[in-house]
Amino acid sequence: MIDSASYPRLSRIQTPDDLRRFDESELVAVAEELRAYLIESVGKSGGHFAAGLGVIELTVALHYLFNTPVDQLVWDVGHQTYPHKILTGRRDTIHTVKQKDGVAPFPKREESEYDTFGVGHSSTSISAALGMAIARQRQGDTRKAVAVIGDGAMTAGMAFEALAHAGGMDDEPNVLVILNDNNMSISEAVGGLTKMLGRATASRTLNALREGGKKILGDKRNSPPARFVKRWEEQWKGMFVPSTAFEQMGFHYTGPIDGHDLPLLLSTLARLKDAKGPQLLHIMTTKGKGYEPAEDDQIGYHAVGPFDPSKGLPAKGAPKKPTYTDIFSDWLCDAAAAEPLLMGITPAMREGSGLVRFSKEYPERYFDVAIAEQHAVTLAAGMATQGAKPVVAIYSTFLQRAYDQLVHDVAIQDLDVLFAIDRAGVVGPDGATHAGNLDLSFMRCVPNMLIMAPGDEAECRQMLSTGLQYKGPAAVRYPRGTGPGAAIGNDLSTLEIGKAQLRHAGSRIALLAFGATVPAAEQVGRELGLSVVNMRFIKPLDKAMLLELARTHDGFVTIEDNVVAGGAGSGVSELLNAEAVTMPMLHLGLPDGYQHHASREDLLAEAGIDASGIRAALLKRWPKLKDTAAPLSAAS
Amino acid sequence: MIDSASYPRLSRIQTPDDLRRFDESELVAVAEELRAYLIESVGKSGGHFAAGLGVIELTVALHYLFNTPVDQLVWDVGHQTYPHKILTGRRDTIHTVKQKDGVAPFPKREESEYDTFGVGHSSTSISAALGMAIARQRQGDTRKAVAVIGDGAMTAGMAFEALAHAGGMDDEPNVLVILNDNNMSISEAVGGLTKMLGRATASRTLNALREGGKKILGDKRNSPPARFVKRWEEQWKGMFVPSTAFEQMGFHYTGPIDGHDLPLLLSTLARLKDAKGPQLLHIMTTKGKGYEPAEDDQIGYHAVGPFDPSKGLPAKGAPKKPTYTDIFSDWLCDAAAAEPLLMGITPAMREGSGLVRFSKEYPERYFDVAIAEQHAVTLAAGMATQGAKPVVAIYSTFLQRAYDQLVHDVAIQDLDVLFAIDRAGVVGPDGATHAGNLDLSFMRCVPNMLIMAPGDEAECRQMLSTGLQYKGPAAVRYPRGTGPGAAIGNDLSTLEIGKAQLRHAGSRIALLAFGATVPAAEQVGRELGLSVVNMRFIKPLDKAMLLELARTHDGFVTIEDNVVAGGAGSGVSELLNAEAVTMPMLHLGLPDGYQHHASREDLLAEAGIDASGIRAALLKRWPKLKDTAAPLSAAS
Repeated sequence: MIDSASYPRLSRIQTPDDLRRFDESELVAVAEELRAYLIESVGKSGGHFAAGLGVIELTVALHYLFNTPVDQLVWDVGHQTYPHKILTGRRDTIHTVKQKDGVAPFPKREESEYDTFGVGHSSTSISAALGMAIARQRQGDTRKAVAVIGDGAMTAGMAFEALAHAGGMDDEPNVLVILNDNNMSISEAVGGLTKMLGRATASRTLNALREGGKKILGDKRNSPPARFVKRWEEQWKGMFVPSTAFEQMGFHYTGPIDGHDLPLLLSTLARLKDAKGPQLLHIMTTKGKGYEPAEDDQIGYHAVGPFDPSKGLPAKGAPKKPTYTDIFSDWLCDAAAAEPLLMGITPAMREGSGLVRFSKEYPERYFDVAIAEQHAVTLAAGMATQGAKPVVAIYSTFLQRAYDQLVHDVAIQDLDVLFAIDRAGVVGPDGATHAGNLDLSFMRCVPNMLIMAPGDEAECRQMLSTGLQYKGPAAVRYPRGTGPGAAIGNDLSTLEIGKAQLRHAGSRIALLAFGATVPAAEQVGRELGLSVVNMRFIKPLDKAMLLELARTHDGFVTIEDNVVAGGAGSGVSELLNAEAVTMPMLHLGLPDGYQHHASREDLLAEAGIDASGIRAALLKRWPKLKDTAAPLSAAS
Repeated sequence: MIDSASYPRLSRIQTPDDLRRFDESELVAVAEELRAYLIESVGKSGGHFAAGLGVIELTVALHYLFNTPVDQLVWDVGHQTYPHKILTGRRDTIHTVKQKDGVAPFPKREESEYDTFGVGHSSTSISAALGMAIARQRQGDTRKAVAVIGDGAMTAGMAFEALAHAGGMDDEPNVLVILNDNNMSISEAVGGLTKMLGRATASRTLNALREGGKKILGDKRNSPPARFVKRWEEQWKGMFVPSTAFEQMGFHYTGPIDGHDLPLLLSTLARLKDAKGPQLLHIMTTKGKGYEPAEDDQIGYHAVGPFDPSKGLPAKGAPKKPTYTDIFSDWLCDAAAAEPLLMGITPAMREGSGLVRFSKEYPERYFDVAIAEQHAVTLAAGMATQGAKPVVAIYSTFLQRAYDQLVHDVAIQDLDVLFAIDRAGVVGPDGATHAGNLDLSFMRCVPNMLIMAPGDEAECRQMLSTGLQYKGPAAVRYPRGTGPGAAIGNDLSTLEIGKAQLRHAGSRIALLAFGATVPAAEQVGRELGLSVVNMRFIKPLDKAMLLELARTHDGFVTIEDNVVAGGAGSGVSELLNAEAVTMPMLHLGLPDGYQHHASREDLLAEAGIDASGIRAALLKRWPKLKDTAAPLSAAS
C-alpha cells in the first residue's frame, strides 16, 4: 500500500475522478509525488522508466482536463504509460508490472477501461485516435480523441499516413495529436524528421517571443496587433519551426511548449480541448526528467531491472552466458571484417538488436533508419541489387510491419538480403504485442526464403554465416536471452543448406525439434529412448532424413516455438503428404491464442513446449512410451 | 514491326544509346512519336495507359541525360513504364504486354537490365534508389540513383520513411527523387499530402517568377542579387509551395516545373544530375497527356482493354455475370442501409474494390485514406473500439502491407473489423507482384481470425454478412473476376460459423475444396464418384465433418488457390494430427514459387488446380481411381 505520509496527495488518488477534485494550484505537487512514486516503484519492480518520467506533467494535465475514460486517450508505444496506469486504478499494483498476472507494461484494453487501445508497437496512436473520433462523430459525439506520440514514433510511415488522412478530411475530425518531442526514441532518433523537429529546439528563443506575444495579446485574435503578430509569425516560422509541414497537411499547430511546465500545459490544453478540427500540440520534454542519472543516460534507463534509486543502476556484473543478441553482435563485426560490402541495418533498435559495437567499428556501413521497418527492408533490397550484402537486424514482431517489403521487394526478386530476427518465438514480460510467435508461418509461405533456427549458440553463428553466403533471401530467427551454453566458434564456417542434425538415434518416435526447443526435446528424447533431430532448417526441410526416419519410426512429433498453424511442423506434414507418406504425427508449438506477459519460462511451460510439457504430450498420445522397451507399431 | 514512315525517329531507337545519338533539338519530335506509338500499341493490346502518357517527356529526358542502364532509374508503381520499356529494347514486343510470355506490365529485373527494380506495389522507389545510391557510394561510385514517384504513391508511409532517412543522412546520398505530380493516383488522390501539394498549383505564377529570376541571375549564386532573391524566396515559399517540408527533411527542392516542357525538363535535369546530395524535383504532369479522352477520364483510362484510339473506349456492353467485386459493391450498400454504423474504408482503390456506389450513397461513411494500407487497418481498429462496424476493402496483395496492423491492432485486441479481400488467389495478367497467393497462410496463423472463402457468388454475399455480424476480426477472400454464376440473394442472411457444405456424397476419397477451387473440384469429384466438400471456412474448420469423413474415406485431397505452405490444406492436416487421426492426404494449391503474368485460367492450369490438373493429380496418386468402382483401402 502507498505510504500516505510520503504521498499525501497521490495516496488520495485512485482514479482520475479523485485527481479532478484537487485544485489546479495543487497539481504541481501531485506531479512531484507521482514522479517520486514512479521512481520508487520501478526501482523495486524494474520496467520501463525514462519515458514515464518524461510525461509526468502531461499525464496529470490530460487526466485533469479530460473526462477519462469517456474521453479517449491513446498513448503511443506505451512505454510511457506507467504514470497513466498509476493515476487510473493501478497505483497499488504497478509494482507487479511485467510479471505473470501483474500489470501489463503497455496499455491493454482488457486491463482497464482507461487503456483505450493496446499499443506495444509504435506509431499506431494517430490512426487509432482518428478512428475513434470519426466513429464518435458519426454517432453525434464530437468530443476529442487524443493521441500522445513521441518524436521517435513519428518517424514511422503509418504516423505520417494518419496525419495526412486526418489533415485532409473535409469534415475536420476532432483529434488532438500531442507530439512528445524528446529528441529520442529508444535508441537515438535519426533521420530527416528529427532534423526537421530539431530546428524547433533552435527556435526556442523565437518561440518564447511568440508565447510572450500571445500572452500580451490575450484572446483578441482579430485585433490589428494580433493580426500583425500572426502574419509576422507565418513568414518566419516556416524557416525555424516545424509548424509549416503540419499546417500544410491540415493540422492546426501549437507549440513547441515546455512539457514540464504544468501550468502552461494546462492552459494550452484547456484551449485546445475545445478547439475544432485536427490539432497538433508540440511539447518538448526530457526523457528521465527529474531523476538525474536517467536524464544523463536515457538509453540505459529506457527499461531497467530493479535498482536502488539512491544509487542508480548497478554496475554490470561479470558477463554471464552470452545472449543470442551478443552472438549476433560479435558475428556481425567479424563478418563485416571479412566482407567489405556487408551493410548493417536497424529500424531504431541499435541496442536491442546488438548493433552498438558494429555502429562504432563500421559507422559507414551502419544504418539506423529510425522506426521505419518498411523502408529498412526495401533499402536492403536496393543495396542488394548493387552487389552489397545487407543484413537487416530486426525483432520478429516488428518484421510483421515489413511483411510486404519482404515479399514484394526482397523475395519475389530473389535478392540477397539476410534477416537476423531476434526475439523470435516466446518473448515474455513484454506481452502479446511483442511475441515473435508467427514468423515461421508468415515466412514459410513465401517462395525463395531460406529459413533457419539455431538449436544453440554455436549454430546461431554458423547460420548467420550461412545466410550471408546464401544467394537469395535468408532468415535466421533466434530467441530472446541465452541458449543452452554451447561453445561458440570464432570463424565464419557455414552449414550445409537443408541438412538436419540427428542429435540422438533412438527408436519408435522421432522428435523433430526446431530452434529453441531442441534442448528440451533432446532431454525428453534421451530419457524415453526416442530419436531426436535438431532440424536446423525450416525451409528447405531435410527431405532425405525425414523420409528415412519415416521408414524407421512409428510416429513424428514436431516441436517449435511458433504457432502450430502453418508453422515448421506443418511443413513436415506437407512434405510427407507430397511424398505420399502417411505417418502418425503430433505437432507441438505455441497456442492459437495470445499469451499474456510472464517470464519466458512460464510461457514455454504454459504452451507445453518445455521438457515436462513435451513429455506429458508424448505420453498422452502414446501411453506405451512410458515403457521404454515397448514397441509402438500396433498402438498408434 | 514498327512502321518507319510513321515513326521516322522512333524506328531508329532500339535502346537508349540510339536515343542519345539524336540532337537535343529533335527530342520533342521523338517524344511525339513515342506518344503516338504508345497510343497505337496500347490501343491494340490494352494495358496501363494514362500514366504512361503522362511521363513521355520525362522518360525521353531521363534516358537522354542519364547513362542507363549503368545509371539506375527506379519507376515507382510501374504503371508508367511502358514508354520506358519502348525505349529500352521492348519497342517491338510492347504489344504483348500482360500476355503469357509477353512483356510484363511492371518493371521486372529478369526482363531487362534497364528494369532496375521490380515495382508493382507503390511507394517503394525511394527506398530502393537510396539503397542503390548508398551501396554504390560505398564502392566508390557516386553516380545518382533516380526514383520517379507519383504524388499518389507519395502518400504511403514508406515513401515518407525513405525521404526522412535520405534527407537525414550525414554523408548526403546521391539520390534524385522526381515527384511526378498529376494530382491523381489510380483513384482520386486524397488527404493532407495532396492538400500540401495542391498549393503548388496555386503558386505557378510565383514559380514562374522564381524560374525567371534564376534565368536572369544564371549561376551567380552568391552575388548579392542572387542572395536577395533566395532570401525573398525562402520567406514566401513556405506559405505557397511544398518545398519547405521537403527541405526541412534535408532534400534540395526544385520545382514545380511543367513536366511536359521537354526543353525545361532537360535543362533542369542536366543541372540536378551533377548536384550533390539528395535532390527532389517536383514536376507537374497530366495523366493521359496528348490523348484527349484520357485527359478527360483519367480513371477510366488508367488501364484499358484493346480499343480504337480514333474512337476512344468502347461503351460498356450489357452487364454479363457480376464479378465478385460487383457482389461486394452491392452487398456493402445493402448492409450499410441496415447497419448505420457500417464504415467503408479503402486505401485508394475505390474503383478496383467496388466502392464507387457506396462512396456516392454513403459519403459520410466512406473513407478513402490514400495509399496507406497500414493506416487503413488501424483506423478501422480505432473505429471498432467505439462500436462502429468498419469494413476494410483491400486487395489480397496489398493487405501484406498492413500485416502488422492486422495482427497488433485488430486481432490481438479481438476487434470487430471485417476485411473484404479482393483479388485473392490467382490474379493473372498483373504478374507475381499482384498475386494474392499468400493470404490464407499469413492470416491462418493469426489467433482470433475468422477466415472464409466463397465457392460461389451467393455464398460470397452470405459470408460478407456473416463477417459483419461476427464479433471479432473476420476476413472474406474472393478471387478476381466472375464466379460460377450462382443466383445471388438480396437479403443479409448469414452462414453458420465453421460449417462446411457437402456438395457431393461419394466414396473412397473426399475432395476438400476451398473458395474458387470448388467448381473444378466438384466437377472432378462427381466424375470419379468421390465426395466433394465446399469447406467455406478456413478458420475455424468444420471439425465434426472432417472427422466423420476421415472415418468413412480412404484419403483426403485439399484444394485451394493459395500456396500449399501453411495454407488451408495444412490446417486440415493440423486438425487431424491434433485428433490423432492418420490419413493419406494430398495437398493441391499454388506452387512454392512465383507465377509470371498470364491469364487467370492459364495460371490455374499451370498450378494444377483446374479440373484437369486436379484429375491428373488424383490419378497419379491413386491410379485405381480410374475405375470408379474399385475400392482404395489397400492401395494407399
